[in-house]
Amino acid sequence: MSILVVGSVALDSVETPTGCRERILGGACTYFAVAASLYDRVAMVGVVGDDFPTHHIEFLCSRDVDTSGLQCVSGKTFFWAGRYGADMGDVQTLDTQLNVFADFHPVVPPSLAASDYLFLANIDPELQLEVMAQVQRPKLVTLDSMNYWITSKRAALTRALQAVDVALLNESEVSLFTGECNLADGARQLLDLGLRALVVKRGRHGATLLARGPSGALTHFFVPAYPVEQVVDPTGAGDTFAAGFLGYLARAGGRPSLSRMRRALVHGSIIASFTIQDFSIDRLRSLTMEQIEARYAEMRKMTHFEP
Amino acid sequence: MSILVVGSVALDSVETPTGCRERILGGACTYFAVAASLYDRVAMVGVVGDDFPTHHIEFLCSRDVDTSGLQCVSGKTFFWAGRYGADMGDVQTLDTQLNVFADFHPVVPPSLAASDYLFLANIDPELQLEVMAQVQRPKLVTLDSMNYWITSKRAALTRALQAVDVALLNESEVSLFTGECNLADGARQLLDLGLRALVVKRGRHGATLLARGPSGALTHFFVPAYPVEQVVDPTGAGDTFAAGFLGYLARAGGRPSLSRMRRALVHGSIIASFTIQDFSIDRLRSLTMEQIEARYAEMRKMTHFEP
Repeated sequence: MSILVVGSVALDSVETPTGCRERILGGACTYFAVAASLYDRVAMVGVVGDDFPTHHIEFLCSRDVDTSGLQCVSGKTFFWAGRYGADMGDVQTLDTQLNVFADFHPVVPPSLAASDYLFLANIDPELQLEVMAQVQRPKLVTLDSMNYWITSKRAALTRALQAVDVALLNESEVSLFTGECNLADGARQLLDLGLRALVVKRGRHGATLLARGPSGALTHFFVPAYPVEQVVDPTGAGDTFAAGFLGYLARAGGRPSLSRMRRALVHGSIIASFTIQDFSIDRLRSLTMEQIEARYAEMRKMTHFEP
Repeated sequence: MSILVVGSVALDSVETPTGCRERILGGACTYFAVAASLYDRVAMVGVVGDDFPTHHIEFLCSRDVDTSGLQCVSGKTFFWAGRYGADMGDVQTLDTQLNVFADFHPVVPPSLAASDYLFLANIDPELQLEVMAQVQRPKLVTLDSMNYWITSKRAALTRALQAVDVALLNESEVSLFTGECNLADGARQLLDLGLRALVVKRGRHGATLLARGPSGALTHFFVPAYPVEQVVDPTGAGDTFAAGFLGYLARAGGRPSLSRMRRALVHGSIIASFTIQDFSIDRLRSLTMEQIEARYAEMRKMTHFEP
């Protein structure tokens, strides 16, 4: 198995200026798995309740996603409801019901312990550490987190950051974790924990890959958000960004060099741009590698300039 | 004369987290002229009072800036005081004294009427139109504006936009002027006024050049803000961005193609990045074309990726 993802599987009710949807397929683990399955074989570790529609599992299997690590337990699936404002920026959470996710402890099936690429989606860093303890050293481990864990589980999150290769955070999270207003200083502090690279997510402004060059100096690589004419539902943008990033690296194989990570970052931006063009994972259902590659070529035109 | 700029010349009192300065050289016209003088000959049209220090004029002359259009009248020079917060984002205006600028009407000396490149800095659009009426058709006219004029002088601003080639606005200004939340829709509406290109300034997120390609479809070009380790004073970033943009085009000569405008946008980002590394125009005093070109090469590394 190539890519392993651990995180939430959810049913979401979403309101955006373009429409409403009730109890649609959601959760970081789901978004990631569906998107990454465009690149390579993916296995999910998560939990659902007995209300989780069978056709979602069938869809995941149709994408060749390994669901042997997806625990199906008695009770209700994690439920989230949110509303996006006119500019699709900050989301207002209307309801969160952890349900079966409240007592979740990830169990990595032995057949998946040797996965080459691991994505620890935004969950309790103690659970992220539990996963790390169950896998053999993958080629690349990427971690997502959020303000809540930085504040409430700082020590565990620090241990998790020390154990992974790449962290995906937004600017305010870098600032909150490091206490630095200056992004470069914050990035150095995070890289000094042992990260090979920090990906700073900037939403509609794109993302930045920060790493140390051969001389030890901080290097920046910027990718814009691919410009989408009509955003339908921003949910899952960050998770599918991670899927494009890891998916590209898994498909490329070998040790992920910095130059490969740059191309991977562009794939992340592109996959996120497709995701937000429809509700749930719907746009990803019909997405093809040819469509991804067409946007990749466009992205070069949108960013490159002559000497 | 190659580049003509019309706008405010000011004395500024500035507070930032890094320090305070009293009555330092400021104003959009000044920032632009000093920065653009790195590229080509510049002439200023503006007004100062009899309190304006002679050594500032001497400095401008030392940069070969033509000040024959700079009116020196009885009274006090335009004064602005502002304070920047910890993240150097939104500035709080503490004081504005228009003084001699209140009754300013630009007069373009006949010797400057045939300038090839014209920058209409952020002033009353009626004054921008007065300038347009005094010049022969330049190769490229670029206009800056702000929310205040969009609200209070909409008709005049619309006429000015219809008469120029490139507008520099930020996202909220595009949205306010066009009534479109969607940047692409807003950009099309502005381009339909007759603009060849729209530059959307995004502050620390860089800038985007929007124009129509050969097929009429909207094209995007993204440039990040060059990452500066310590921002000292953000004042003048937008005006010196414009100076890098027009300065590069003036130095290159010929008709400004879209591909040339992309490189010009990178120069804009770079000049702005130097400007904010010191108070007033101080960093520009010692800036060299070699230093600009070094950052240009770095910017390529920070944005380019393989096919």
